[in-house]
Amino acid sequence: MSFKSDIEIAREANKKPIQEIGAKLGIGSEYLLPYGHDKAKVSQDFIANLNGREDGKLILVTAINPTPAGEGKTTTTVGLGDGLNRIGKNAAICIREASLGPCFGMKGGAAGGGYAQVVPMEEMNLHFTGDFHAITSAHNLLSAMIDNHIYWGNELEIDERRIVWRRVMDMNDRALRDIVVSLGGVANGFPRQGGFDITVASEVMAILCLANDLDDLQKRLGDIIVAYRRDRTPIYARDINADGAMTVLLKDAMQPNLVQTLENNPAFVHGGPFANIAHGCNSVIATKTALKLADYVVTEAGFGADLGAEKFMDIKCRKAGIAPDAVVIVATVRAMKMNGGVAKADLGEENVAAVEQGCPNLGRHIANVKSFGVPVVVAINHFVTDTEAEIKAVKDYVESQGSEAILCQHWEKGSEGTVELATRVAELADGGWSSFAPLYPDEMPLFEKVETIAKRIYHADEVLADKKIRDQLRAWEEAGYGHLPICMAKTQYSFSTDPNLRGAPTGHSVPVREVRLSAGAGFIVVICGEIMTMPGLPRRPSAEAIMLNAEGEVEGLF
Amino acid sequence: MSFKSDIEIAREANKKPIQEIGAKLGIGSEYLLPYGHDKAKVSQDFIANLNGREDGKLILVTAINPTPAGEGKTTTTVGLGDGLNRIGKNAAICIREASLGPCFGMKGGAAGGGYAQVVPMEEMNLHFTGDFHAITSAHNLLSAMIDNHIYWGNELEIDERRIVWRRVMDMNDRALRDIVVSLGGVANGFPRQGGFDITVASEVMAILCLANDLDDLQKRLGDIIVAYRRDRTPIYARDINADGAMTVLLKDAMQPNLVQTLENNPAFVHGGPFANIAHGCNSVIATKTALKLADYVVTEAGFGADLGAEKFMDIKCRKAGIAPDAVVIVATVRAMKMNGGVAKADLGEENVAAVEQGCPNLGRHIANVKSFGVPVVVAINHFVTDTEAEIKAVKDYVESQGSEAILCQHWEKGSEGTVELATRVAELADGGWSSFAPLYPDEMPLFEKVETIAKRIYHADEVLADKKIRDQLRAWEEAGYGHLPICMAKTQYSFSTDPNLRGAPTGHSVPVREVRLSAGAGFIVVICGEIMTMPGLPRRPSAEAIMLNAEGEVEGLF
Repeated sequence: MSFKSDIEIAREANKKPIQEIGAKLGIGSEYLLPYGHDKAKVSQDFIANLNGREDGKLILVTAINPTPAGEGKTTTTVGLGDGLNRIGKNAAICIREASLGPCFGMKGGAAGGGYAQVVPMEEMNLHFTGDFHAITSAHNLLSAMIDNHIYWGNELEIDERRIVWRRVMDMNDRALRDIVVSLGGVANGFPRQGGFDITVASEVMAILCLANDLDDLQKRLGDIIVAYRRDRTPIYARDINADGAMTVLLKDAMQPNLVQTLENNPAFVHGGPFANIAHGCNSVIATKTALKLADYVVTEAGFGADLGAEKFMDIKCRKAGIAPDAVVIVATVRAMKMNGGVAKADLGEENVAAVEQGCPNLGRHIANVKSFGVPVVVAINHFVTDTEAEIKAVKDYVESQGSEAILCQHWEKGSEGTVELATRVAELADGGWSSFAPLYPDEMPLFEKVETIAKRIYHADEVLADKKIRDQLRAWEEAGYGHLPICMAKTQYSFSTDPNLRGAPTGHSVPVREVRLSAGAGFIVVICGEIMTMPGLPRRPSAEAIMLNAEGEVEGLF
Repeated sequence: MSFKSDIEIAREANKKPIQEIGAKLGIGSEYLLPYGHDKAKVSQDFIANLNGREDGKLILVTAINPTPAGEGKTTTTVGLGDGLNRIGKNAAICIREASLGPCFGMKGGAAGGGYAQVVPMEEMNLHFTGDFHAITSAHNLLSAMIDNHIYWGNELEIDERRIVWRRVMDMNDRALRDIVVSLGGVANGFPRQGGFDITVASEVMAILCLANDLDDLQKRLGDIIVAYRRDRTPIYARDINADGAMTVLLKDAMQPNLVQTLENNPAFVHGGPFANIAHGCNSVIATKTALKLADYVVTEAGFGADLGAEKFMDIKCRKAGIAPDAVVIVATVRAMKMNGGVAKADLGEENVAAVEQGCPNLGRHIANVKSFGVPVVVAINHFVTDTEAEIKAVKDYVESQGSEAILCQHWEKGSEGTVELATRVAELADGGWSSFAPLYPDEMPLFEKVETIAKRIYHADEVLADKKIRDQLRAWEEAGYGHLPICMAKTQYSFSTDPNLRGAPTGHSVPVREVRLSAGAGFIVVICGEIMTMPGLPRRPSAEAIMLNAEGEVEGLF
């Protein structure tokens, strides 16, 4: 049996004009700003007038800890959205935009896969509607204005050693990680160390994804801390007078993008913050807009539930005043096997014992998510090599945890493969069983918040942090930042900080290496382990094989 | 009497849906890729099918040497396009896109002014359709791939001291002019000197503006010289395998952008290369497309006629196989006065003698342009302080040179103010009087080409270049680049290389400081004097005052 590739399926898509997709949600074509015939932004004016409407049900799709086997979280998000529409519900999906840089490194970046995809796939993996370019420009305008301020006399008394605002580029370019800028003499400024991160790591990205509207956006941009004085007092983007111009650069990017699934159902694709040093969810404005327009909104969060779902609940929902009505945890037989100790090369062989051994990883995610007060269902994303016995092992395990696992075949069959899941999810969401509460209250001291996440979500025994880090957290509390939520940056491959520790480890410690204040986004980043904010290209970057073929189609991107 | 500002006029514009503008040119809406409701790209497919059609008449708008008084070249281009439509002709205009970076430095960047503008003005000065972002990405992908190649073993034996490909950003950021990259140890590469130019200075920009189609684009991108080996042999972008992915990043940017004038006439706004180290014209593909769709195409070239018109003729027309049917030279009474020695503060006072004294600058441009074998008419762009006597002085002078000067009032009156000019231009273009030939043949030796431009256009006595420069030119001739045209980079304020030498100087020397090979764009850059390829921000950048007002409109950008 041979399968078509994702890109082959995407190219065969029978796309409808984006105005027809908008019409499904009641958006008049005058409120859709088209980008080509298959993409559009929903206008700010239209969104501003939705305020009085009732919200639809919010469904989060999250997953077990990712393994090299792949879980298909986005694919399941798309498949579930199509499934809900198939059973007669008015549903929309909300996912993140892809970053351009990594597309030229490793193959990848598709939005879903198989018969559960969002299109136009190529544009979504290239410039799309320019949002990330706008974020890059806004970020780097602030950078240029900081050095320019120093150049012209440094009235604000910026300590050049304590500039914390770097530059960004949507490119994998390790040569820009650590640089010295302003060389070349008097005309070019004062030499100092600097560097570039990839655009998705920009605080501007996190801000755009958390802002409720343009006013809120500008306020948050103004709140960014760009540097400190010798006396350690902070200097804000507002002090540099950059917040207004940054907002102007971002005004179009703040409008959510509407595209469609292969089954012509509406998909909002907007924003894409890092899931380690940021919260890893699509934009609040897209999710809130979708909730006003659809009866069911299916969205996802980055990495596994220990990072993604926790941040979705404790950062995005808390700040946006929204709450999930049901949560889907995606698992695969293959990933269970890997959690059970099987090597990637051996995943094709049936191994029920390994599946059973890996299931506790899933079990812990189920319990964790339930602890937020939300109903949970497990989606087993079917893979062709899965055996009946293996699937039954997962189902039995989930049942033993007081939950339910449903087999989904959206990759192969589209919405036909998610009818059962969609039906159950709609029941759960409509049942009113959700009594959502975040993990910790705003007023809990910052270090206690870190401990709460580490102990209750990661099942660690303790958090290790030296005096300097604890003092820093206390200093931020005194400066009025104590109410902020925590954004954990740790490996996505394990509940612990050791990427090789699969399954459901206990008794481990969470060592905190560094803490950062994202005052504009409104969270404290707690870094446990190495976090790369500017990737490099591999020895043979996929860019070398990317080209237009004789038909003018993009080859090598997927 | 009080006048409305450009932005006030632009906001009152009665814009038509871009599909209606496309329809005027016979472009079906399926071939227009909309960006919002008032901008669109003309699809590659549509353009590819225009080949058999006859070309319209091509009209170049150029100017005297710019002065701080302003000449209004773009304004006149727009006004003439509207004027031609007003007298019943089917006319389109072709102008360049604005660079984002400078908008945050000095106020500016509008497309025309008064009642001769192209809209939507704000978008055109911000991200527009993302072309410049695409160029930035393509350029920096190549940069990243060069350092990545070295990082993984440097098979091509790139001499790290001889990397000539820098990075770009569409931002005025002097701190990035001279930097050291790849600091931080083994994981980040080999430290070396580098730097950023502004995006409009990228050779990718020049290439995009000279390429005939996507195949030609990829070929030219592959031809870019990125570095040299120790033995001085060149390494091309093709050797790095970057040309395919760069083409993919540029495939949308290659499609010309269609917008409209205040009078709802079609305007192609596409590309914007520097007018010193590059040729300073809008894209060949936009101009050629417009020529297939309109009976008259009005376009412009950067700076004064000594740089802009010369490069238009010797680079753009030569490479694209097109020729102007008539040329309009824009002059103002104020600029004539400044050329006659009047200070900017005193321009409001009548001074016929100064006007007469400044006119030889105009006279030389007339003679120069005529020497290309094309009919010339002078447009006097009217300013409210101009007196009858001053205007008469210009007209009389031009008549004494065997040409004709026509007063235009498009800034105040729109097309009503250019009826006379449009009528005359149409006569000239239709008269078949043009017998265009470039200034020098392809086969002329490179240094002789430089001398030909310096003597015949600048009226210099000699070109000064040391042995190293002459040897370099000879080496390029031997390497097969001898057929390339010359792209002069000198001050735009004078026929000479001294910006303070106004009027029509003679007896001066043209000292060549440096020569560069733009092998992808296909020209030799000859640098005479200081050329800034990365601007800085002023003490009070306009960014500080740019913001959204309570109505959500952009303030401070203009």
